[in-house]
Amino acid sequence: MDIDKQKNFSEWFNTIISSAELADLRYNVKGFVVFRPWSVKSMKLMYTAYEAELERRGHSPALFPALIPESNFKIEGEHVEGFTPQVFWVEMAGGNKLEERLAMRPTSETAMYQMYALWIQGTADLPLKIYQSCQVWRYETKATKPFFRSREFHWIEAHDCFADEAGARGQVREDMEMTQAVLFEQFGIPFLFFQRPEWDKFPGAVHTYAADTLMPDGRVLQLPSTHLLGTNFAKAFNVYYQNDKGERAPVWQTCYGPAISRIYGAMFSVHGDNRGLVLPYDFAPLQVVIVPILGKDKDGTAILQYCQEVLEMLTRAGIRAKVDDSPNTPGFKYNHWELQGVPLRVEVGGREAEQKTLTLVVRDAPPKTKATVPLASAIEIVRKEGSLLSARLTAKADDYFKAHLSHAATMDELKAALEKGCIVRVPYCSMEKNEGKACADEIKAKFAGDVRGIKYDEKPPHAKEKCVQCGRDAKHWAYVARQY
Amino acid sequence: MDIDKQKNFSEWFNTIISSAELADLRYNVKGFVVFRPWSVKSMKLMYTAYEAELERRGHSPALFPALIPESNFKIEGEHVEGFTPQVFWVEMAGGNKLEERLAMRPTSETAMYQMYALWIQGTADLPLKIYQSCQVWRYETKATKPFFRSREFHWIEAHDCFADEAGARGQVREDMEMTQAVLFEQFGIPFLFFQRPEWDKFPGAVHTYAADTLMPDGRVLQLPSTHLLGTNFAKAFNVYYQNDKGERAPVWQTCYGPAISRIYGAMFSVHGDNRGLVLPYDFAPLQVVIVPILGKDKDGTAILQYCQEVLEMLTRAGIRAKVDDSPNTPGFKYNHWELQGVPLRVEVGGREAEQKTLTLVVRDAPPKTKATVPLASAIEIVRKEGSLLSARLTAKADDYFKAHLSHAATMDELKAALEKGCIVRVPYCSMEKNEGKACADEIKAKFAGDVRGIKYDEKPPHAKEKCVQCGRDAKHWAYVARQY
Repeated sequence: MDIDKQKNFSEWFNTIISSAELADLRYNVKGFVVFRPWSVKSMKLMYTAYEAELERRGHSPALFPALIPESNFKIEGEHVEGFTPQVFWVEMAGGNKLEERLAMRPTSETAMYQMYALWIQGTADLPLKIYQSCQVWRYETKATKPFFRSREFHWIEAHDCFADEAGARGQVREDMEMTQAVLFEQFGIPFLFFQRPEWDKFPGAVHTYAADTLMPDGRVLQLPSTHLLGTNFAKAFNVYYQNDKGERAPVWQTCYGPAISRIYGAMFSVHGDNRGLVLPYDFAPLQVVIVPILGKDKDGTAILQYCQEVLEMLTRAGIRAKVDDSPNTPGFKYNHWELQGVPLRVEVGGREAEQKTLTLVVRDAPPKTKATVPLASAIEIVRKEGSLLSARLTAKADDYFKAHLSHAATMDELKAALEKGCIVRVPYCSMEKNEGKACADEIKAKFAGDVRGIKYDEKPPHAKEKCVQCGRDAKHWAYVARQY
Repeated sequence: MDIDKQKNFSEWFNTIISSAELADLRYNVKGFVVFRPWSVKSMKLMYTAYEAELERRGHSPALFPALIPESNFKIEGEHVEGFTPQVFWVEMAGGNKLEERLAMRPTSETAMYQMYALWIQGTADLPLKIYQSCQVWRYETKATKPFFRSREFHWIEAHDCFADEAGARGQVREDMEMTQAVLFEQFGIPFLFFQRPEWDKFPGAVHTYAADTLMPDGRVLQLPSTHLLGTNFAKAFNVYYQNDKGERAPVWQTCYGPAISRIYGAMFSVHGDNRGLVLPYDFAPLQVVIVPILGKDKDGTAILQYCQEVLEMLTRAGIRAKVDDSPNTPGFKYNHWELQGVPLRVEVGGREAEQKTLTLVVRDAPPKTKATVPLASAIEIVRKEGSLLSARLTAKADDYFKAHLSHAATMDELKAALEKGCIVRVPYCSMEKNEGKACADEIKAKFAGDVRGIKYDEKPPHAKEKCVQCGRDAKHWAYVARQY
């Protein structure tokens, strides 16, 4: 593969999905894809990493049903309004019409919170922090795109309850820190957390905070979001506890939802290059591929034996490795495993077998950059090079992201920055629906830019700043970008 | 809890599910349960163990859609007939009626094999061995029972393709070996593999082989089954390859389905005792609980500090441990963690803190059996005792299972053996539907016994043996048991 990712991102994206066998789009239900082994192996590693971070922060795993009675679904007014257009409904089972329609979960608040009402009685039951790893289904009306937006996706949803607002707000901060710890520090994906405008919140939430990353085509993609639900759902689902004063009080809630299939899409889009995937070492299905270089006229037994020796050594150390002893040429194999994003390639020819060395090539190194290392230090060097590769990917992605943060004081500047593919900070009138949405609609109509919200921890502008669109006093620094 | 598991299994089973918080049955869709953290943590460990064994044997993970078009579903005649009464159907999404009804997968043959047809061209693509870990939904008409039979369950399904019959038959044997390696050797669950009678096969299969284990009430429970699909589905779904002679040939297929939520139910039913859960060390959510014993009038700081020291030591070694420093009495804590099946309890009082020792109690030891061990060898001893506990559980379960295998030559003997809760070997006329089903129906009507099939590797009886029910020549040794 040789496609300019930066210039032709859409072509690059579609090509890599089929060439690297990440997903098959030919499944015959619209908006549903088949995830093939190469992507699933990475996603499983990503799930494991995420779940470990959730559990480290006091979350426990549970599994709730995929089907939710329509009556549950209708309990919280904003939620039902927001999600009803997206629900797949089950009305028949076998030959029987069900007494009540069942929703395939688009998200699990309305399945979980009725159970929370049974489980929570007093302060000893709080905080309650539960997550589940599962699939959800949403009948998307927007155009679907594999990994980024499909009608079925694979996610984790964490639903937490607290005695008070401070507890819930603390969880929102913890969710943001956890996003940093996983998405940036492990997957190498840079992002900013925005508090979404009032007109763009999760249905039923008090506030929605969402992590936006930037794709190579200059469009932002929403990654995990955390929602301060306040007591809206608790009141609707009767999740009350007896507080220290002996009073019955609703719990404060948050929910947090990292979509692993989408994050995987973001990860390979951010790190990939024109030759194919480039995967962080810890999340590559295969970390080391060993390629035997057999001389044309010679017996390759010694080389192949040595390859096996190297393989066993790496495997015993817990490194995911394999020998590619297929009949293809070494050049074919190099291209293939570069396309697949394998972090390290070990070339083994007669010289290496004889001298007990390895020739090591790192996926993101300039062409022809090779190092010869002694077998005895292979494990150590593989781990070190893997870790350096991941660090380089993160740093490169971060540099790119920061280089595409921009500022605009006027509509002309905003237009120019959006056309450069930036996330643009602008002075902005209001995040309230009735005060600020009109400007967002204008910006959308004029430049296809979307007001993504305000940065979580940023101070508001000075009084003299005026809204980039309407010229009224600016209450916020808003961030505008083209979005998926 | 103190219930005689052997005498009152049903009460024991229902009580432990609620007391140990394994599942909540109050979810408001019939046949669907909420799996709570204590069971989910074990099931996650069981999934990991099973997936590792599948991958070790050349399987790769994939993820296929949960929804299957009705037209796919109807392609294989026997399959559609068998599963249609059990399907949850989606006809509406948002406010729209779908062009075609979609089945929530009851199993994934009809989702997967159309894709296999696209992926398989020649011998280089074979064998193809793919599994997915997912949920399936079946509108069961039989009575549901949490973990054992519900309308939603959590399983793994492996679907494999081979160039020829020998390959497929080899896979059936490998599936059986894998079941032994996981269910018996890791989870400690004994079973026998039976080739099911022709009237009790998986819809669309040539042969069905299923592992039956025995519950304490003398009823057998079907655990993983592996199916030789022959070329039935391949022909229906057009999964052909070009063989070495250049001819177009259908692949030979197998599928294998361990239901983790059911296996978990079998595991705790087999190993539990009258006081609660007893879990194999490797699959216990918590492996060691540390209980501080604080003197009534003394400052417990030194004891609590020492507990933390022990905890950190064990945690660093990868042992799942916690300190129970709740305000409950030690006796309350002992009962609680025994109910939860924690393999090892460490008691820490003033003496232990001073002398740097641990008092260790193993879950399945006779009451009051304690050992004092030095802190320096704690990790080693914990691991050893954990491993010995698991080995004892397996041996005990195996003894029990073998003691309940019986033989009957007459209907009276069969009746007596079934009433003792045995799996009973009998001479039997035929496994063909038109020849042998009538006898099975008779045995069912008379003794509530079910003909489970013939043992996979057993030689048929001598010519002189006569069917236990009809007296005709016996072609088989059949196994009869009461079933769930």
